[in-house]
Amino acid sequence: MQAGKPVLYSYFRSSCSWRVRIALALKGIDFEMVPVNLIKDGGQQLAIIEYLEETRPTPRLLPQDPKKRASVRMISDLIASGIQPLQNLSILKKVGEETKLTWAQNAITSGFNALEQILQSTAGKYCVGDEVTMADLCLVPQVANAERFKVDFTPYPTISCINKRLLALEAFQLSHPCRQPDTPTELRA
Amino acid sequence: MQAGKPVLYSYFRSSCSWRVRIALALKGIDFEMVPVNLIKDGGQQLAIIEYLEETRPTPRLLPQDPKKRASVRMISDLIASGIQPLQNLSILKKVGEETKLTWAQNAITSGFNALEQILQSTAGKYCVGDEVTMADLCLVPQVANAERFKVDFTPYPTISCINKRLLALEAFQLSHPCRQPDTPTELRA
Repeated sequence: MQAGKPVLYSYFRSSCSWRVRIALALKGIDFEMVPVNLIKDGGQQLAIIEYLEETRPTPRLLPQDPKKRASVRMISDLIASGIQPLQNLSILKKVGEETKLTWAQNAITSGFNALEQILQSTAGKYCVGDEVTMADLCLVPQVANAERFKVDFTPYPTISCINKRLLALEAFQLSHPCRQPDTPTELRA
Repeated sequence: MQAGKPVLYSYFRSSCSWRVRIALALKGIDFEMVPVNLIKDGGQQLAIIEYLEETRPTPRLLPQDPKKRASVRMISDLIASGIQPLQNLSILKKVGEETKLTWAQNAITSGFNALEQILQSTAGKYCVGDEVTMADLCLVPQVANAERFKVDFTPYPTISCINKRLLALEAFQLSHPCRQPDTPTELRA
């Protein structure tokens, strides 16, 4: 990563890869994408985002105020540790075909119940205040997963509203799973 | 948290609470503990640790070098997002009595296989170099969980060795689940 373009090993549909693609787009970092047809667990891509933040501080993805930073990280971790790992494909495979939809919906709704409440006290235009932060990079890919699993969004007006605002931004559109080099033709938009 | 002692809502056995207790002990922060008999998911306590690091920088729990910081966060996230959420009690309850031990062992060993390999390139005395970092705060509670689930440690010599060194330190002993105000008598040591 010292010399030349950074390389992102990415899978079009992975919410973890998508988070990083949004960060790269927001920071205007030119990168090479190597598609890997593999679903990886967990939120390890948050380490990449924190690294990008420390080495390319503009625009900020973490607010300056320590309490607001803690809110951003709490929301990010709620999604990256509390929701995503419980509904990723490798886990759903283990859970089995008959119960996997209910399992995923339960994991997402119990996380979103907490998230909706947190956002009511932290959100402005976006998850924490009026600037795009790491929390927003986590929110949009998770909402997309929720939609794939047909979660009912009626109880989550704040989540839905912030998600819509974010999807209007260019960085979230460019990085969208429907527009990646490894997106199958039938899923392109 | 502005005035008076910080309050930690803690459950003696929770690996997430234990991570924070180690951070508080290392930083010498006096705090009030409120035991809650509740098992919470996920790694949301990493937001607390990052907040402590930013507001009480000494001793450091993240190295100064951005690449080393990224290693620390990668290891922390591997544990807090990639392992712990898949083997916490609320998930094991859903998995069911007959398969829960195998499920937990699989979640831990597939994470530890990756971790053992990463540590071989990052570790010194501890997970990343020779200073205690946030990665170590995540390692020790996860190893304790692995022991409870009777994981075979033969393939993990690096993990075992670092874990032993860390358990010799006072901050890890004071914060240990066997020595908390809500530890049941039969589990005290």
